[in-house]
Amino acid sequence: MSGTGGPGHDRLARAFLTRVVEPGDEAGGRWVREWGVREVVRRVRGDGEPLPGVSPRRWEGLRARAAGVSAQRDLEIARAAGVRFVCPGDPEWPRTLDDLGDGRPLGLWVRGRPSLRMWALRSVAVVGARACTGYGAHMAATLGAGLAERGWVVVSGGAYGVDGAAHRGALGAGGATVAVLACGVDRPYPRGHTELINRIAEQGLVVGELPPGDHPTPSRFVLRNRVIAALTRGTVVVEAAYRSGSLVTARQAQRLGRHTMGVPGPATSALSAGVHELLRGEAVLVSDAAEVVEMVGDMGELAPDRRGPVLPRDLLEPGARRVLAALPGGRPAGPEEIAREAHTTPDDAIARLYELRALGYVERHGDGWKLTRQAMVSVRGGPGPC
Amino acid sequence: MSGTGGPGHDRLARAFLTRVVEPGDEAGGRWVREWGVREVVRRVRGDGEPLPGVSPRRWEGLRARAAGVSAQRDLEIARAAGVRFVCPGDPEWPRTLDDLGDGRPLGLWVRGRPSLRMWALRSVAVVGARACTGYGAHMAATLGAGLAERGWVVVSGGAYGVDGAAHRGALGAGGATVAVLACGVDRPYPRGHTELINRIAEQGLVVGELPPGDHPTPSRFVLRNRVIAALTRGTVVVEAAYRSGSLVTARQAQRLGRHTMGVPGPATSALSAGVHELLRGEAVLVSDAAEVVEMVGDMGELAPDRRGPVLPRDLLEPGARRVLAALPGGRPAGPEEIAREAHTTPDDAIARLYELRALGYVERHGDGWKLTRQAMVSVRGGPGPC
Repeated sequence: MSGTGGPGHDRLARAFLTRVVEPGDEAGGRWVREWGVREVVRRVRGDGEPLPGVSPRRWEGLRARAAGVSAQRDLEIARAAGVRFVCPGDPEWPRTLDDLGDGRPLGLWVRGRPSLRMWALRSVAVVGARACTGYGAHMAATLGAGLAERGWVVVSGGAYGVDGAAHRGALGAGGATVAVLACGVDRPYPRGHTELINRIAEQGLVVGELPPGDHPTPSRFVLRNRVIAALTRGTVVVEAAYRSGSLVTARQAQRLGRHTMGVPGPATSALSAGVHELLRGEAVLVSDAAEVVEMVGDMGELAPDRRGPVLPRDLLEPGARRVLAALPGGRPAGPEEIAREAHTTPDDAIARLYELRALGYVERHGDGWKLTRQAMVSVRGGPGPC
Repeated sequence: MSGTGGPGHDRLARAFLTRVVEPGDEAGGRWVREWGVREVVRRVRGDGEPLPGVSPRRWEGLRARAAGVSAQRDLEIARAAGVRFVCPGDPEWPRTLDDLGDGRPLGLWVRGRPSLRMWALRSVAVVGARACTGYGAHMAATLGAGLAERGWVVVSGGAYGVDGAAHRGALGAGGATVAVLACGVDRPYPRGHTELINRIAEQGLVVGELPPGDHPTPSRFVLRNRVIAALTRGTVVVEAAYRSGSLVTARQAQRLGRHTMGVPGPATSALSAGVHELLRGEAVLVSDAAEVVEMVGDMGELAPDRRGPVLPRDLLEPGARRVLAALPGGRPAGPEEIAREAHTTPDDAIARLYELRALGYVERHGDGWKLTRQAMVSVRGGPGPC
């Protein structure tokens, strides 16, 4: 790990640090920024001086955690489990995470086909109480489905209650969903959601900051929320008691300049009290997916325009290019038909369609997909969405 | 009615016009402002030229309505029914109504003991759907009771549903409530609320712009809402479908610079959809009476400070002065005990207590009342709340 080396060495060093530095530790982020990731690893493994300004006790703790860690092995385990490690600077790295400053993840472990960066471009977080009411579960599922039907990616934490209902709503609508976990992505938590999280990994993405096999802790749940907030264009809270973790996500979203929204409920419900508190502040009341979309981006608008450059058609990943070429001219087609044409699976086709949606190439109409007007123009030889 | 005369003649002319000009008719208000109320009456009764700028057809309509009207008789009927006619400039006239400009009522017919002006100083409107849900009725009643318990006057429209529940909540808490009707105050509407409205007249106030015996019309309901909005410091909407009359009241309140509030409900409820629409605009979400009071005025604050001068103790109406003198020094007392001491009825004591509350002399503590710190100081010879 010491000495000079290419980006591969940076990746190895970052993977190493995900086992040593806790998610969201801003001191760790600062060290990496100031000293470079490989130098931090070299020192913490005992090949160099302690980093200046770090207390001896803290330093010993870091060294103890570093002992016996093999990033090489972690990356191999991950690869075997179908997990990739995405780092800042990688084409798949969602730049929106850079808004977290020194609290930015060192890297993200990612399970699933789609491009995390593409999907994040047009994503909304739907979060809320684990012990939600039937009303909360209904609203989360309806929002999840409604957002998916409008071509939006539903991001949540994979937990019981609102999170699970939102994921299931999106999956049920043949849509795109991302679970951000507070543990290793090969180790679904909660256990009762193993099947759900595996399905999300098949049809969408499961991501997290923790290396393979690592377990969740209370503080990891809280810090995971900042990733959900930063990844998405906005956060919708569906049921939350006072002082709940979902409110942390919402406030984080607010600080990051993302849209913060809340679903109202009966004023007599303790599980809506937190949401109502939020709505008395800066958050906007939303009753359905249409109102959410109205907030986070206009229908028909080319989302990436707001987030910097998008890929020109020539630079699309070959899988996405094939799916784009498989879309019929003037009418919508279902994912199965498109998959057949593109010689791939429906799950892969869905993954690519939501990427293309984020880039402004396609739109969802009911259960079908069609080229946008802009994409049609560029097919006919005009300029693409770039 | 013609010729010169004192304020008594103005009162007679205004009473006359309440039968001729529809509530909220701004043209009528402008005529009165430009020509004086007695001149308008003189002309419309056929003793003078038509008012300039009024179409012949309109003029004929007004003259037809004026034929056979006797303000003298109306005032006599009113007096016999325990109804007084309060006009702009009267000590009991709530100055907040002047914010309506030319749409200001010509006068208000008032049934009940308390001073309308005093009560209006510290009042909140609670309005909403007639066909409300059980949840809406519960919230209205709870708000009505909670506001009354905090010494606030609950104003509503006397209708079925939310209005009735709010009035009953206030009455049930031994509190102050005002019904603003869209018909003659001696002719309770709806009929099914005859008993409720009579109880309000006993324990509170029933007011309206229409002369004795006059009936409600759809447009009168709508225009009645502007009086509710102007009379109070803020309007809370509890359940309202899209395009409901309560939203008109709320928007009017907003335009008048009053606080506009809404009680959230399930996003799946059509009867909360109008409230949620309001909450997506300028209205503030409230879940209970404490949050309403937080909006309209701080606890312990001397409300009238915001609304101009209040009466010094010497100028208090004798009934109010007697009740004030009947309050024990350092402890709260119930209305019955205070009534005994002041040689009056509990209903009258309650009427005076809420007046004194509006003036900053007393506070409500649970079911009892006690002198405020400011009042204690002035009892001991310091300056009063003026």
